[in-house]
Amino acid sequence: MSVNDMIAWHQHLQTPVLFNHHEPYAVNSSTISHIDLNNIKSTPRAISNQERVLILTPLRNAAPYLTKHFDLLSDLTYPHDLIDLAFLVSDSTDDTLAVLASELDRIQKREDKIRFRSATIVEKDFGVGVEMEVEEKHAYKAQGPRRKAMARARNYLLYAALKPEHSWVYWRDVDIVDSPKKILEDFMAHDRDILVPNIWFHRYDNGQDIEGRFDYNSWIESPQGLKLAASQDKDTIIVEGYKEFKTGRKHLAKMGDWRFNKDEEVELDGIGGVNILVKADVHRSGINFPCYAFENQAETEGFAKMAKRAGYQVYGLPNYVVWHIDTKEKPGNA
Amino acid sequence: MSVNDMIAWHQHLQTPVLFNHHEPYAVNSSTISHIDLNNIKSTPRAISNQERVLILTPLRNAAPYLTKHFDLLSDLTYPHDLIDLAFLVSDSTDDTLAVLASELDRIQKREDKIRFRSATIVEKDFGVGVEMEVEEKHAYKAQGPRRKAMARARNYLLYAALKPEHSWVYWRDVDIVDSPKKILEDFMAHDRDILVPNIWFHRYDNGQDIEGRFDYNSWIESPQGLKLAASQDKDTIIVEGYKEFKTGRKHLAKMGDWRFNKDEEVELDGIGGVNILVKADVHRSGINFPCYAFENQAETEGFAKMAKRAGYQVYGLPNYVVWHIDTKEKPGNA
Repeated sequence: MSVNDMIAWHQHLQTPVLFNHHEPYAVNSSTISHIDLNNIKSTPRAISNQERVLILTPLRNAAPYLTKHFDLLSDLTYPHDLIDLAFLVSDSTDDTLAVLASELDRIQKREDKIRFRSATIVEKDFGVGVEMEVEEKHAYKAQGPRRKAMARARNYLLYAALKPEHSWVYWRDVDIVDSPKKILEDFMAHDRDILVPNIWFHRYDNGQDIEGRFDYNSWIESPQGLKLAASQDKDTIIVEGYKEFKTGRKHLAKMGDWRFNKDEEVELDGIGGVNILVKADVHRSGINFPCYAFENQAETEGFAKMAKRAGYQVYGLPNYVVWHIDTKEKPGNA
Repeated sequence: MSVNDMIAWHQHLQTPVLFNHHEPYAVNSSTISHIDLNNIKSTPRAISNQERVLILTPLRNAAPYLTKHFDLLSDLTYPHDLIDLAFLVSDSTDDTLAVLASELDRIQKREDKIRFRSATIVEKDFGVGVEMEVEEKHAYKAQGPRRKAMARARNYLLYAALKPEHSWVYWRDVDIVDSPKKILEDFMAHDRDILVPNIWFHRYDNGQDIEGRFDYNSWIESPQGLKLAASQDKDTIIVEGYKEFKTGRKHLAKMGDWRFNKDEEVELDGIGGVNILVKADVHRSGINFPCYAFENQAETEGFAKMAKRAGYQVYGLPNYVVWHIDTKEKPGNA
C-alpha cells in the first residue's frame, strides 16, 4: 500500500468523533490515540444516526457462491458507505481467495452503486481436514469438532475486523440465495440484542420449485434438552438432527411460514449462523462463539446460550425467511 | 488528528508483511485491505522473531498509581518498539484520564529510552456505582456483580486494542509496585498459552517491611470446589475468601516463595488478573473474560476455566513474585 493509498484509506475511514485527541490534553505525539466507546449506540434509528455495520462472512472453499453473495450484498438498501465487509478465508483448496478479491474489485468499482466503506480479507488456516467434512459430515461424532473449528474461525474474524466505530455486526453466510433487500433495516427495527430469521431452502427439481425448512440450529430449549445436557460429559457437544441426541427442542424452522406476519418474534435459546444481526456491544462484552463445549453447545448455538447466560435477548422471526442453497443435507448441518 | 499526524502514525505502525495487498490480485481500490494471520507466532524466541506485544491495563479511579506504573513499564527490557500499550478508563470520578494522558506524554517523550510503538486510551463507562465498591466490597454478594463488570471492561479493551500483528497479550494491573524488568522475556521462555506469577504485597509499617501473599484468585481446583459448583445455581459466581464458599482449592499464593527456583511451574484452573501473559491466538480463538457465570466463575477465574475447557494450558509460577500494593483487603479482592 503506498502512502497515498494510506491517506485515501484513512481519510475515507476517518471518524472524527472517535479518534480525535481530547483538547485538554492533546499532545504532539503521534503515537497516542484516543477512542471513546461511549458514543457507540445500536438503535432502530440506525440510518439517521449513521450507525456503522460490519458484515462478517467466514469462507472455506466458497468460490462458487461468491458472485451470488456479492449480488445480494449490492442490493442491500442500508447505506453502503456505513457498511464494512470482512471475510475470513481458511483451509481452502479452491480459488476462494482469488475469486473473492476479484468480486470485491468488481463490487467496489461499480458506478451504479455507492461502494462499501471498506472490505477486509483475513486469511487464517486452522488445519481442518477437508476429508473429515466430506466423509464424516453426517456422523454426529464429527459435528462437535466441526462446530468448534467453525467457532474458532468466526472469533478470529471478529477480533480482526471489529472496529470501535461499529454499532452492529451482521453475520451472513455465503450460501444464501435470496433475502430481503431491507433485511438490515427490518432487523434493526426489532431493537433486539441478537436476532435471526427463519432459514428455508429452494430446490429446483425438473422445473419444480420445492421449498423446505433448512436450519435446525435455531431452537427453544426444552426440559428434555436440559436433562440430556445434564447427563452428558461437560465436553460433549449436543447437535441437532441425530438420533444420538433426542433434545425435544422446539425448532424455529418448523414454526413459521413466509406467508405470515414477518414481525412476529419468538425468544430462542440456540441459533444457527446463516444470518445473525448482533448489537456490537454484545460481542464487545465478550459474548462470542465457543470453540469448546459451553453448556454442551458450541459455535452459534453456544453463542446463544452464552448470550442468554449473560442476560442478553436472543430472538427469532419465524415468518421472516432467508433462503439458503439446498445442500441436501440432514438437518443440523446448516 | 491532522492528516500529517495520521501519516506519521500509520507509517510508524505499518507492518508490510501483514497489510500488503497480495500481488496476484492487487487492485487499485484503496478500500480493500488484506490481513494474513498465518504469520503470527508466539514463541520463546520472541525478540529475535520481532513478536509484537500488547500490554492491556483496565483503569478506574487509578490516578495515584499511574506514575509508578509507567516507571515500571519504562524499565521493561523487552524492546519497547515491539510493545503497544492500551488502557480502558471507565467509571472514574478522579482525574485518571488527565493523569494518564500526561504520563503517556512524559513516557513517549523520554530521550533516554526507545518509546513504545503506540499507546491507545479507550473510554467506556459501564455505570458501575462507586458506592457499591466502597461500601460492599467485602460482602461476598457484591463480588459477583463486581467481577462481571471487570470482565466486561477487560473484553471491551481487548476488542478495541488487539491488532492482527500482536503475538502476545500482557494483562498488567496498574497497582503493581515492583516486578522483574525481564518479566516478558522470562514468561515467554515458558512457552505456555497462559501464565501468571505469584502475587505478594509489601507493607511498610513503622519502618518495618512486611511481606504478604496477596492474590487468592490463582488456584488449583479441588473435588470440594467442583462439588460446591455443582450444588449452586448456574448463575452463581463462586469467589474465594468468603465463608459462604468453602472451595478447598489449593492457592498459588500459599505455595511458593520468591527465594526459590523461579522457573518452577504448577498447572492452574483459576487465575487472578494482576499479571497475565497470554498467547494472542488464545484470545483470537474466543477465550476471554466471562461477564457471566462460566462454570460458576467470572472474569479472570472464568477465563482460566474457559481456557482449560478449550484445551489450553494455564500455568502459574509459585516462586516468581510480582509485588502488588497492600490494599489491606481480604483475600479474593485482588
